[in-house]
Order: sequence, then structure tokens, then C-alpha cells
Amino acid sequence: MKISIIGSGNVAWHLGKALKQAGHEIVAVYSPTVPNREELARVLAPATAIASLDMRATGAELVVIAVPDAAIASVVAAVQVPAGAIVVHTSGSQPLAVLQGIPGARPGVFYPLQTFSKSKAVDFRAIPMLLEAEDEQTLSGLQQVAKSISDEVYVVDSRKRKQLHLAAVFACNFTNHLLGISYELLQQAALPHTLLHPLIQETIAKALQNHPFQVQTGPAVRHDQNVIEEHLNLLQDQPDYQQVYHLLTHSIQDHSPKK
Amino acid sequence: MKISIIGSGNVAWHLGKALKQAGHEIVAVYSPTVPNREELARVLAPATAIASLDMRATGAELVVIAVPDAAIASVVAAVQVPAGAIVVHTSGSQPLAVLQGIPGARPGVFYPLQTFSKSKAVDFRAIPMLLEAEDEQTLSGLQQVAKSISDEVYVVDSRKRKQLHLAAVFACNFTNHLLGISYELLQQAALPHTLLHPLIQETIAKALQNHPFQVQTGPAVRHDQNVIEEHLNLLQDQPDYQQVYHLLTHSIQDHSPKK
Repeated sequence: MKISIIGSGNVAWHLGKALKQAGHEIVAVYSPTVPNREELARVLAPATAIASLDMRATGAELVVIAVPDAAIASVVAAVQVPAGAIVVHTSGSQPLAVLQGIPGARPGVFYPLQTFSKSKAVDFRAIPMLLEAEDEQTLSGLQQVAKSISDEVYVVDSRKRKQLHLAAVFACNFTNHLLGISYELLQQAALPHTLLHPLIQETIAKALQNHPFQVQTGPAVRHDQNVIEEHLNLLQDQPDYQQVYHLLTHSIQDHSPKK
Repeated sequence: MKISIIGSGNVAWHLGKALKQAGHEIVAVYSPTVPNREELARVLAPATAIASLDMRATGAELVVIAVPDAAIASVVAAVQVPAGAIVVHTSGSQPLAVLQGIPGARPGVFYPLQTFSKSKAVDFRAIPMLLEAEDEQTLSGLQQVAKSISDEVYVVDSRKRKQLHLAAVFACNFTNHLLGISYELLQQAALPHTLLHPLIQETIAKALQNHPFQVQTGPAVRHDQNVIEEHLNLLQDQPDYQQVYHLLTHSIQDHSPKK
């Protein structure tokens, strides 16, 4: 399929490479930043770096809007696409409806459920691709493209995708923050954070194989009040962490089966 | 070294096997539960299952108390060991001092920083072993034993070990709980939790390679107030999760570098 890409960030970069590798022809890359669009167009050769959101002459059958959520509206207001082209965004939190109003376009969602960094290769075949469209024909077009890059293709409506995005915030953003707190606590004791790596890896391996509530360990689920109070005491100069400890301890006690 | 083990839980089980495999002779296994001590003694043959905490006749040079924190005191009150034997506990949260008062014993700490399940094999060589003792000779004996099973041996005093245990609660117990919440949120949308697995694995891989605060992503660190409010709204019937979302969002905003 002939594909245009709008954006030059982490998603545009990784998705563009995966699409090219799957045999699609990337015809154009747009980004407001000249060096970014030129670099990505080079990587996605024979793609052309273009300076305008008028894509009518590119021949694109699929236009991928891979920009930050907050920038989608301004792209939608300005973009012009070949008649009948599918236009998708790649956002977990934005509804399909934000793409309404692009003349002649068939809107869709093409959301890769993963966190990307430019410098780190990812195996796209294992990344869930969540699709949505207004009609069967558009959906079937998107399914074909998605299956060409991933083995995990799902059709998920905007409401469910929003719930999934919320779950991802707990599973990814919040866990990452807790790991940051744990590293900081180790630093305060002049201990290397690598000490915790085997424990973290084993914890995650278990949580992927079981329901986490069923394999919960630690002082909270044991209702070990002595240890809990000692920990809260250790955190007395860091009231924000103390609050997190307090709340999560209670949440564990409310949601785990009694041991 | 001739070693006795007190306990038959996950730590006793895995530590016992690692010690035997490293060439130590497990001479005795005590547990109040008859089938448990007999099963573990069989696994650690030629170990003998014993029914009393009087270990004076076992010839043990090292006695490992691998019981729940709350049971250590009653073991200490009852155990009798060969004169000059090193006696250690395996707890992350208990000070060395809880072992005071065992006649003729040299107290120490022998803490494997890992979460164990009986059914799941672990690579002991990668598990940090945290040691503590009152004198150099005892410490050097423990170091020898620890190095025979692990490549990661550290001497850490009781105060630092407590801080490490606190950090482990954030990195392990609390993250596990958040993963449990995320699975529950997916379940509410009738989505499989395997959808999140690639994202979780990538998040953890990044957090092990960087300081998590430096690679934080998501609506909180982006101060994306629209998405945050939508998420809080989605959680309106689950006020406990709403509270966790609220607190962690603010904690991320307070602790991550502005993006």
C-alpha cells in the first residue's frame, strides 16, 4: 500500500520502518521540522520529505498521523489527502471522532500498544495493533496493513481503547514511577540499584504468568503492622513517599485475598 | 560446610537446594510440620529430618533460620546449637540483634534478595546475598558460603538492609499491585491482559537501563490535563483506584524532570 506519514517522533520512526520492511511504499513524510522530516524520509526511501500538509499529489492510500495527541487537531484542520484515502491516528487516548472533517478521507485508528524510544529497536510482530474504523471496508484495509507488521491485531472501539489506555497508565507509567522511587531510596542508603534488578525481573515474570493479586507478597498482604510502621517511620522526612506507601498498602489489603 | 536448616518454606527450599548443589552437606532439617520437614530432608539428602530445635548433636557449623519474620523470636528462644556455630536469619526486615541470646552461637544475617515460589526455579548465582555479622571471622565464614552460591555478595548493615527492604516493597509489592489493578481494568472492558505484556516488558527493560524518572512517559509527566480528567472520570465508580491514580499522577509531576 502507498503510505504517507505525518510526524517524525518515536512512533513515526518505528512504525514507518516496520511498514517499509513489510513491503509498503512510503511515499511521503511530513514534519514541521526540516531536518527531522528529511532524516526520516531518507530512512524510509524512496519517501519524499514534504513541507506542506497538502498530500493530494502523493498518491497515498493510507495517511498515518503519528503526532502528539495535542497536535492531532491542528493536523486535521490543515491536512488534505487523496480522495478516498484512509487517514488514521496512532493514539491510545483519542477517539476516532477527532478525525472527522478531513475532506474525502476515511477515518480510522491504528494504535500500536507500546512505548517507543528512537534508539531502541522493537519487535513489531509482538506489538498489539488496535484498530478502529467507521465502515467494514476501511477496517478490512487497516487489518491487512496491521497484519503485515504484527501478529497481534485487535479491533477495539474508542471506549474500550480509552479503558485500555487507562490500564496502561497503571501498568507502565505508574510502575515506572514506583521503580524510580525505589532507586531513590537505595541511593539514599548508598546502595546500587542493580541490587533490585533480579527481584524486579522475577516479580514481573510472576505477574505475567498469574493474576498479580493472587501472587502478592510483602508486609501489606501479610498485615505485618510492625514492618509497615517501621517503613512509614523511615519515610518520615519524605511525606509524599509516605503517602504513596500508606495508600498502596491499604489498597493491597483491600484487594488481595487474605493470606 | 555442615549446615542445618530451620524452616521448610520457599526460602528454605531454594536456599537449601542451592547450598547442597554448591557442595555443602545439609545435616539436618527442622520444621514443626512433619511431612514438610521429611520432604525437604529427602530433597537435601543425606539431611535428617529432626523434630526438635536441639541441634547440638547435628555437627552443624552453620544454622540457617529460614522462617517467617514473626516466627524468628520463638525459634531463637528454643534453638540450641553446637558451640561456636554461626546462626543466621534470612530476613530483609529483621535486625541482626534479634538473634542475640542463643547460647554459644555467632549471629549473622544471610539475606537472599529475591521473591521465591516453590514451583519456580531461580538462578541463585544472580541473586544478591546480603550479609551481616558482629565480627570479622563470622563475616568471612558467611562470605565463603555466600560466594559458593551467588556471584552477588554484599555486606550491608541492618539499617541499610531495612532501607533496601523498603525500596523492595516499592519495586516489587507495589508494582505488582499496580499490575493487578491494570489487569482488573482490562477485565472490565473484556480485553485480555496479555495485550499489556509487551508494554510491561518494555517498560521494565527501560527502567533497568535508565533512571526511571528520566524515561517517564504518559499523561502525568506531559501534564495532559484532558486525558487525566477523562481517566479520573472513567474511575468514578472505583474511588480507591481513583485515589491511587490521583496521588501517583501528582507524585510523577513532582518528581520527574519537566518535559
